Amino acid sequence: MNKWKYVTPGVPDELFIRERGIPMTKNEIRVLSLAKLRLFPDAVVYDIGAGSGSVAIECKLLIPEGQVWAIEKNPQAIQLIKRNIRQFEVDIEIVEGEALDCLNKLPPADRIFIGGSGGRIKDILVSCDQKLKSKGIIVINSVSLKTSPYAFEFFSNRGYEVEAVQANIACTVQKGSSYLWQARNPVTIITAQKRGEM
Amino acid sequence: MNKWKYVTPGVPDELFIRERGIPMTKNEIRVLSLAKLRLFPDAVVYDIGAGSGSVAIECKLLIPEGQVWAIEKNPQAIQLIKRNIRQFEVDIEIVEGEALDCLNKLPPADRIFIGGSGGRIKDILVSCDQKLKSKGIIVINSVSLKTSPYAFEFFSNRGYEVEAVQANIACTVQKGSSYLWQARNPVTIITAQKRGEM
Amino acid sequence: MNKWKYVTPGVPDELFIRERGIPMTKNEIRVLSLAKLRLFPDAVVYDIGAGSGSVAIECKLLIPEGQVWAIEKNPQAIQLIKRNIRQFEVDIEIVEGEALDCLNKLPPADRIFIGGSGGRIKDILVSCDQKLKSKGIIVINSVSLKTSPYAFEFFSNRGYEVEAVQANIACTVQKGSSYLWQARNPVTIITAQKRGEM
Amino acid sequence: MNKWKYVTPGVPDELFIRERGIPMTKNEIRVLSLAKLRLFPDAVVYDIGAGSGSVAIECKLLIPEGQVWAIEKNPQAIQLIKRNIRQFEVDIEIVEGEALDCLNKLPPADRIFIGGSGGRIKDILVSCDQKLKSKGIIVINSVSLKTSPYAFEFFSNRGYEVEAVQANIACTVQKGSSYLWQARNPVTIITAQKRGEM
Repeated sequence: MNKWKYVTPGVPDELFIRERGIPMTKNEIRVLSLAKLRLFPDAVVYDIGAGSGSVAIECKLLIPEGQVWAIEKNPQAIQLIKRNIRQFEVDIEIVEGEALDCLNKLPPADRIFIGGSGGRIKDILVSCDQKLKSKGIIVINSVSLKTSPYAFEFFSNRGYEVEAVQANIACTVQKGSSYLWQARNPVTIITAQKRGEM
Repeated sequence: MNKWKYVTPGVPDELFIRERGIPMTKNEIRVLSLAKLRLFPDAVVYDIGAGSGSVAIECKLLIPEGQVWAIEKNPQAIQLIKRNIRQFEVDIEIVEGEALDCLNKLPPADRIFIGGSGGRIKDILVSCDQKLKSKGIIVINSVSLKTSPYAFEFFSNRGYEVEAVQANIACTVQKGSSYLWQARNPVTIITAQKRGEM
Repeated sequence: MNKWKYVTPGVPDELFIRERGIPMTKNEIRVLSLAKLRLFPDAVVYDIGAGSGSVAIECKLLIPEGQVWAIEKNPQAIQLIKRNIRQFEVDIEIVEGEALDCLNKLPPADRIFIGGSGGRIKDILVSCDQKLKSKGIIVINSVSLKTSPYAFEFFSNRGYEVEAVQANIACTVQKGSSYLWQARNPVTIITAQKRGEM
Repeated sequence: MNKWKYVTPGVPDELFIRERGIPMTKNEIRVLSLAKLRLFPDAVVYDIGAGSGSVAIECKLLIPEGQVWAIEKNPQAIQLIKRNIRQFEVDIEIVEGEALDCLNKLPPADRIFIGGSGGRIKDILVSCDQKLKSKGIIVINSVSLKTSPYAFEFFSNRGYEVEAVQANIACTVQKGSSYLWQARNPVTIITAQKRGEM
């Protein structure tokens, strides 16, 4: 059953099936990342390190005619993505394996989202650079000290137009009759657009 | 000329015509607010205190079949909204005047966005509560110490489902060969959904 | 054994004995709060809702000739404060009970810190206002939606000079070879100085 | 006239003489940085890129028997530091010139603060590493995308114990009868302690 009937992104976290140890891009960061991706109807999108599949699923909800590829190496996460896909009745291509081994088989990408890199960020960025079309956009969520400046510099050096946004999000949680602020970990969202002709 | 050809919200700030002294909801806060609004194709939307019109325009870009009303009392801002409307070739109803005097003439709302309240927040919330349909959603951006808890409590007391998200956003700006973090002022986004039957 | 030999505040959190369920003001927020308290050598200081005693202990380390009172109603926390006092070899007066019942027995205060109010913030603020000397300073850490505007308004209405600072702090934690940013919950620090003659 | 009679750091920004274009470490970041420096009475402290002198002056206020060196290359800033020194009646050694040329003439340091590096951060860190005594502490304020991970890695690689704290601070400013949140730019505070015998 398709649970999302709105034009805007921002499916609540609790509508996704979750599993301990499998990361999920949280609502507000997901919304900002999708906006930075600038989706268009027939785009080819990769979600690298798809985790629980939330970004891939929101992409497909937004562009049902687009091609969305979820790349994930963890077999348990793959099963979770499949369950979430059924939950939202969307049609996503799942690719099981290391991003480095998988990307060469895929069609060139208009949009790439990297939510998790499993420590192999350098090689993954090289592959992404090769697969991304002219004027294509890549969005990276970084939660570590080094990844954001590394990615920023990587794409700057290759002539991409790059911006970085850091988001510190806090939400209220009810405790008794009080509402307490609870912080989410800060995320840096790097957005890089490849130069060239459309 | 319609400058935005993407399915996702997030028109860059610099694509809007700006004028000194007229506030604009900045990109990341606008994106989050639009997501919290959960737009659907034929929704009736009010943008109260529309300022430069950026939220109203993004609403209309997302739901071209919807009815979007921009309410604004400042004549200079009205002119700016009109220029931005032409810029994006969208069709928005502009209502000039105090929100309190204008709302009663409008059709009931599915969605209400309040970006600025000009200090009359209490009366405006009362009017909004009256005009909002069952299951309707109201989103308020607060930049002041008192507005967010006031609005939160106002809607809680009336049985709405309320959440608050605080966003501290920083962006990089280039200075020589360095990229420096520049903070945007923190904004609290209150989202309240009216109870009742759809 | 006195574990702190520095002139500056900022005892690391891990030097305090901790206990599950008993709150502790974390390093950075404690440092900022102590700075806002503007301690002087022979000040009379209350730490209301002292929790694990970290603020009271740092006060006493900074002003060994001052009088520091730790007020706490939870018997388990009282034991923890005593253990931390022995740990740091400082001399603090512990008052067991509800702040409302205890304050009237204490000498007037130069400085009051409120880290936790147990929901009775309104009555506590009234008592604090009565006990605070002219030109005295009160610092309140708020983690809830409503406490900070309430406290801000309370003291503004009584002619205090009031400021509010919101601190979103994140620290790196090592995970494998990466350093990840981990957010602490946002805290609003309200500082209010009573008017009058010194 | 000594304007600061408190034991705690945190001189209000407005008590320093300011000049356009000369940076000053703002109150809350200064307080956190001083805490991370862990000052002791007879410490030798460098303030590199001293700007308006606020950190050097607060160090000297906290440890009047210590040796505090303010290193600054901008002649206009040097004049400003001198005026602020007179303002607070403290005794600070001013060294005019590039940090790289000056440090070799100074006694080895117990504590080093780097508020601004003028883009030559790499060479400055090498010099600081040479001048810092065993168990000495260096604190760096970074406002750029790359400086914090660079400094973090530099000191990790040399066996220092390193931590990073990111502070997003917002303060209320009064506008009419409202209090609006105004963000300060985010600062990353890197603290590194040299290994070795005391």
